Amino acid sequence: MSKDFSTREENFSQWYNDLVIKADLAENSAVRGCMVIKPYGFSIWEKMQAALDKMFKDSGHSNAYFPLFIPKSFFNKEAAHVEGFAKECAVVTHYRLKKSPDGKDIIVDEDAKLEEELIIRPTSETIIWNTYKGWIQSYRDLPILVNQWANVVRWEMRPRLFLRTAEFLWQEGHTAHATEKEATEEALKILDIYADFAENWLALPVLKGFKTPGERFAGALETYCIEALMQDGKALQAGTSHFLGQNFAKAFDVKFMNKENKQEFVWATSWGVSTRLMGALVMAHSDDKGLVIPPKLAPIQVIIIPIYKTDEEFALVSEKIIQIKKSLEKRGIAVKFDSRDTQKPGFKFAEAEFRGIPVRLAVGPRDVSNGTVEVVRRDTLEKSIYQQTDLENKITNLLDNIQQNMYEKALSFRENNTYKTDSYEDFKKILDEKGGFISAHWDGTSETEEKIKEETKATIRCIPVNNESEEGKCIYSGKPSSQRVVFARAY
Amino acid sequence: MSKDFSTREENFSQWYNDLVIKADLAENSAVRGCMVIKPYGFSIWEKMQAALDKMFKDSGHSNAYFPLFIPKSFFNKEAAHVEGFAKECAVVTHYRLKKSPDGKDIIVDEDAKLEEELIIRPTSETIIWNTYKGWIQSYRDLPILVNQWANVVRWEMRPRLFLRTAEFLWQEGHTAHATEKEATEEALKILDIYADFAENWLALPVLKGFKTPGERFAGALETYCIEALMQDGKALQAGTSHFLGQNFAKAFDVKFMNKENKQEFVWATSWGVSTRLMGALVMAHSDDKGLVIPPKLAPIQVIIIPIYKTDEEFALVSEKIIQIKKSLEKRGIAVKFDSRDTQKPGFKFAEAEFRGIPVRLAVGPRDVSNGTVEVVRRDTLEKSIYQQTDLENKITNLLDNIQQNMYEKALSFRENNTYKTDSYEDFKKILDEKGGFISAHWDGTSETEEKIKEETKATIRCIPVNNESEEGKCIYSGKPSSQRVVFARAY
Repeated sequence: MSKDFSTREENFSQWYNDLVIKADLAENSAVRGCMVIKPYGFSIWEKMQAALDKMFKDSGHSNAYFPLFIPKSFFNKEAAHVEGFAKECAVVTHYRLKKSPDGKDIIVDEDAKLEEELIIRPTSETIIWNTYKGWIQSYRDLPILVNQWANVVRWEMRPRLFLRTAEFLWQEGHTAHATEKEATEEALKILDIYADFAENWLALPVLKGFKTPGERFAGALETYCIEALMQDGKALQAGTSHFLGQNFAKAFDVKFMNKENKQEFVWATSWGVSTRLMGALVMAHSDDKGLVIPPKLAPIQVIIIPIYKTDEEFALVSEKIIQIKKSLEKRGIAVKFDSRDTQKPGFKFAEAEFRGIPVRLAVGPRDVSNGTVEVVRRDTLEKSIYQQTDLENKITNLLDNIQQNMYEKALSFRENNTYKTDSYEDFKKILDEKGGFISAHWDGTSETEEKIKEETKATIRCIPVNNESEEGKCIYSGKPSSQRVVFARAY
Repeated sequence: MSKDFSTREENFSQWYNDLVIKADLAENSAVRGCMVIKPYGFSIWEKMQAALDKMFKDSGHSNAYFPLFIPKSFFNKEAAHVEGFAKECAVVTHYRLKKSPDGKDIIVDEDAKLEEELIIRPTSETIIWNTYKGWIQSYRDLPILVNQWANVVRWEMRPRLFLRTAEFLWQEGHTAHATEKEATEEALKILDIYADFAENWLALPVLKGFKTPGERFAGALETYCIEALMQDGKALQAGTSHFLGQNFAKAFDVKFMNKENKQEFVWATSWGVSTRLMGALVMAHSDDKGLVIPPKLAPIQVIIIPIYKTDEEFALVSEKIIQIKKSLEKRGIAVKFDSRDTQKPGFKFAEAEFRGIPVRLAVGPRDVSNGTVEVVRRDTLEKSIYQQTDLENKITNLLDNIQQNMYEKALSFRENNTYKTDSYEDFKKILDEKGGFISAHWDGTSETEEKIKEETKATIRCIPVNNESEEGKCIYSGKPSSQRVVFARAY
């Protein structure tokens, strides 16, 4: 643990990087662009996985596993997809190494060149739809509701821990349906699951919307997304769900016999969230004292620190702490008793704070005799003295309260940083001075979207679902517009 | 579902392959040597993962994640390791594709050649020890008890679903310790966990032992293993735990300050089990009617099939089934009500049997009026009529009983197929006629081990832990031997 790290004010980007590394979430590896997710960081990711996995299964999805490798030719089968994904890829060309002639080194064995290169999956639509061809003959085989948890690789020129790494972990759902309607409903159902997960687990309010054609997933007819706002006023795309139409079915010739005994192409969706959410978690909630983790995702929810001078006092205090720990654990709370004798309480307090543990308890000899316990909540750093009576209920309520408070704080931050403007000058000024989401009129053309992006680095994050229609004029071209869209600079 | 598959007697290998494919566990993919693990197969693997993961965590281990890629030079750092692993590997040489000059194809962009090739991890000792160097300074940083769930790639010339695939899923534990004693204890603790898991979850009796130097993991000072016997009399290595000494610490210069303030190299273990266990599960228990899955790993433990002629009967029967389902689910049993109206009961029975569902219930109108239910257990195919009263307890007991019975059946199979011989002629005859484990004297030399392997294809599976010492003569060389070792032909 270390506190010598930047503040958000000084340098948000440095603050983020310092925090991720020093709070033991992740670090850069010896392989450029690839990270090591450390045990503390991984345990948060595991909690995210468990929550999402349950939501997927409760809505009828199953997990499966498809190959890491994709034959190069597969990328060429779907025209839009190849443009988007067959570029910055890791390419496997050989399958053997051998000793160098002098015996000192190992070199690639040129005799072991693959006939066709294999690409490390950047996403799995192609290999999965090639597989689905064998699984689908009739409408009875549909729907297929499959998800996989996997690693994927997209070569990144400017990697950043969690936010943009060459290898990252994610889940990718790939579903197959008999009708367009069903596929669209599936894509929207997943969007709701993602939003629910972001709000109720990450304590992160999100805008649900759909992307403009220019921002769509390569191969999708519609990309739905959830967009969150970080503390520096930049947006972060936290999850996407794609309606793929029949594009991949056509590319891989996947047809089914419908109820009317006619051959038809299958309808598809795909959807994913990734370890990027770890970055969102940090940038949305943490502060200049360290991580702030929502209780539902905290590997340790309560840490108990003993205050003592003598061995006798330690024995006395420990007994009480173990009793408290047990009563909290019975309620399903993850508790750690920080019994190390190598560190002083002050160090332990700062460490617990830095690592974002939602609730910190301290118990000293006087607490034992008074029947009290000192309680500090991480989100507000507020200190209280609780009576030990009924402590498990009080702590359960406090954890709920912290989860809720973190959400509300993030929500009011977003509300305070969402602007509406009808002037391009004002638009640019907001972007430069404040950041945030900007709701503005747009003429609906890719040209205008591109121009605004070139001039301001702001992109259209989404067109909100259930957007209100409103007559207006495009802030850039002055042409008529029938609705506002949401702009921001983004990660 | 399909029953047109080989019997074990006719062709064990074909039976295995047919079963894996037709029971929807896995299939070959478009990429040679890589499999697709289908939802049904994957749900069994998930149950294995959950059980093992809990055992690891309960014994103090945490999960983390390390990069998929390993710089080629890392392999050269540990002499024995390079021999074992830097051969049949997938090699990444480029990081970009581009359009071919005619615009019709995509090709590897030769401008995007990596300075140093990256190897897809065949195992992660090198990248992990390179990382641990940054994590370890003092004895206070030890032990490190880390595991990762990951995919690995070892190019296979003769792939077989689950048993030998180019890409497979596994867990790999990598621990770092201050003393040799602690590392050895860790390796043995994991061996016990593996044996416990094999016996209590897979219902698979295993021999615990250690490998001869010739069969050790490349880079290990000692390889402990669990060895199981398949129904065709061949052995299968079901898990390994390695004591790595200070080999990787020396290769990556990982030292720590010990309590006496002296720099010392760190001691290491690594250990893993893989999707190979899925193959073991099939080959140990299944029969000519299909899969037989131990209840603790069965995604569906009880299937309920309605027997009816009219819609009224269906309504009547369904009501009772839903009631039974709920009462079983309350007890934590995974139940499926097979309510499809597109299939007849006979088909459903055969399908449930084929997919290895431990318990099948059938409920017809007469059962409703009599308060009965027809029960068939998959392991013995025994049929009974149960009174509905207290059914949840009866079924819970039946599932326990099936789990236990499967273990005992596998154990008596192993006992009936374990031989002791002092004659090489007899040894060869047993191998050819019966297979199984053969306990025989060996002179302790690699030369003899190699000769026996060349002549009979049998290998020394292990030297059992707590082996009895017994004076004898090597079956091959006639030289003196002080203990028997266990031979078998193996997967």
